[in-house]
Amino acid sequence: MVEKITLAHGSGGKLMNQLIGDLITKHFGMKEEDIDDAYVFIPEPDTKRFAFTTDTFTVSPIFFPGGDIGKLAINGTVNDLSVMGAKPLFLSVGFVIEEGFLISDLEKILSSMKGAADYASVRIVTGDTKVVEQGKADRIFINTTGIGKFEADIQRRPIEIGDKVIINGTIGDHGISIMAERNKFTFTRGLKSDCAPLNHLILNLVKKFPESIKFMRDPTRGGVASVLNEIAKGKPFGIKLYEEMLPIKEEVKGVSEILGIDPLYIANEGKVIIIVKDKDAEDVLDEMKKTKEGKDAHIIGEVIDKYPGKVYMETTIGGRRILPLLTGEQLPRIC
Amino acid sequence: MVEKITLAHGSGGKLMNQLIGDLITKHFGMKEEDIDDAYVFIPEPDTKRFAFTTDTFTVSPIFFPGGDIGKLAINGTVNDLSVMGAKPLFLSVGFVIEEGFLISDLEKILSSMKGAADYASVRIVTGDTKVVEQGKADRIFINTTGIGKFEADIQRRPIEIGDKVIINGTIGDHGISIMAERNKFTFTRGLKSDCAPLNHLILNLVKKFPESIKFMRDPTRGGVASVLNEIAKGKPFGIKLYEEMLPIKEEVKGVSEILGIDPLYIANEGKVIIIVKDKDAEDVLDEMKKTKEGKDAHIIGEVIDKYPGKVYMETTIGGRRILPLLTGEQLPRIC
Repeated sequence: MVEKITLAHGSGGKLMNQLIGDLITKHFGMKEEDIDDAYVFIPEPDTKRFAFTTDTFTVSPIFFPGGDIGKLAINGTVNDLSVMGAKPLFLSVGFVIEEGFLISDLEKILSSMKGAADYASVRIVTGDTKVVEQGKADRIFINTTGIGKFEADIQRRPIEIGDKVIINGTIGDHGISIMAERNKFTFTRGLKSDCAPLNHLILNLVKKFPESIKFMRDPTRGGVASVLNEIAKGKPFGIKLYEEMLPIKEEVKGVSEILGIDPLYIANEGKVIIIVKDKDAEDVLDEMKKTKEGKDAHIIGEVIDKYPGKVYMETTIGGRRILPLLTGEQLPRIC
Repeated sequence: MVEKITLAHGSGGKLMNQLIGDLITKHFGMKEEDIDDAYVFIPEPDTKRFAFTTDTFTVSPIFFPGGDIGKLAINGTVNDLSVMGAKPLFLSVGFVIEEGFLISDLEKILSSMKGAADYASVRIVTGDTKVVEQGKADRIFINTTGIGKFEADIQRRPIEIGDKVIINGTIGDHGISIMAERNKFTFTRGLKSDCAPLNHLILNLVKKFPESIKFMRDPTRGGVASVLNEIAKGKPFGIKLYEEMLPIKEEVKGVSEILGIDPLYIANEGKVIIIVKDKDAEDVLDEMKKTKEGKDAHIIGEVIDKYPGKVYMETTIGGRRILPLLTGEQLPRIC
């Protein structure tokens, strides 16, 4: 009998996250299938659909190569709305700040949030701040909650054998950068978080290929392997990844090996996995490559009729390796 | 030169809160007059107006007479929407939980949140949970962010000499209950938080008296005196309170005296201050008294042509006492 909340890492991570999720859905009377990156509602009859989503950021350290907790908080919620196909409009911001926090650090974070919001064309419209005693919070936590609007008629479509799996760039950069920073590795020049907003990239695709895109999700906590497992779970198809096509930076590979973790299970903060119709995959890819956030896009896998419900990788030496549903690490406070 | 965030209490409280507020508005490019209990937007041309608001709850202790952090988090955001005149529809919930937190306590809080949401007729539709290491948060923090819809054509109207000030019940119950609990006072039988949702009370009033109600706000942090000061600040009128009409429980008076704090500056969590046209004040009061949340409603003051910009109390012995803009206590982690 589990009596206490434990940290979501190590072998207990998955179970603990499931337990908390189960408790919440049970007490709040939600169904598991209702839980998505965002809640969708129609403000009034005949208006377009809107999306509503929330996320709290507790990343440690709060400043890291490629970003900081503020930029992450803006982009994280922008991305949760974007992968639903909604255009992010408004964000609320809720701060919990520890007594003793440097005002100059707060200013850096606020400035970074404003820059990220402007870059993503989203407006911060309301907020709240709480200060707690020293030792009662770890520096600063930021909640961002967002409202977005569905402009195109994007929707989830049935995934079929032959559909392709696309990612818009390199894998594992955010999580590995945070881990390198925590471990004070000094040999990681060039390694930085991929923290970026996905809305411009995605909304352009959604407009140009409304019928070709079947599913989108940002592979944050749990990484690429977890998102693909969620897609395949219980379905009559499997998902095959081509190892030689996976865009992973050498620095990311290096740190992953030292830490003994697999970049496929590591959080990304500026990436989207897109399942797309086979016949349109190259066109979607070409369109993505024209943009800053999609210039390193790759087709990394496909939906196959073997290994139903599973995700596996065809390795460069011709072998096969099943990528199980997150049994290993789930690093705490990566986002 | 202030370099660090300090706790929002003692004589520095007001200055620190102002400093943080100023930094946020400066960096985010907001104007001070844009900052309200909620942001108002129109989803599409010709639709009704909607409101969007956020609040993070860090109350300590998390369980207290009359409620807990979960009930407070639901009602707090319901009330921020309600005092704008909007009907609360949806809430998001963001948890930060400390490693080691008892699962039985989490279940109590979740159950309490669901009960509060049902009672307020609002739906929890999306959420997020982060677990942090032991010592990196104080048990549990909860962010709630809400969306509401303006059904009646309620709006702020110019306040005039003669307008009456109404409150829907007793003053200072929430803050004083928390302080009594923290100080482990044992003589406070009957003392409990007023934590309650205001939407049913307010929306009924808004429908019946759309033209009579000029201003509403919930006197949470800073209490009744702070809300009235905000209303009077810079205006050509003053606000007079009648001391003998102030509904304050004997237990609240007792604990306040021991702690040396004024209940007029203490947070309430189920109260609304309403400025209403003189001629309709008694009708509004009668309507409020029919409801559970308004049965102890009182007219506690009026808008006068003396002491412009100030709030003062006419005492029971015929004296006058200015109630300044929060120079004294602002207790941390009351909500």
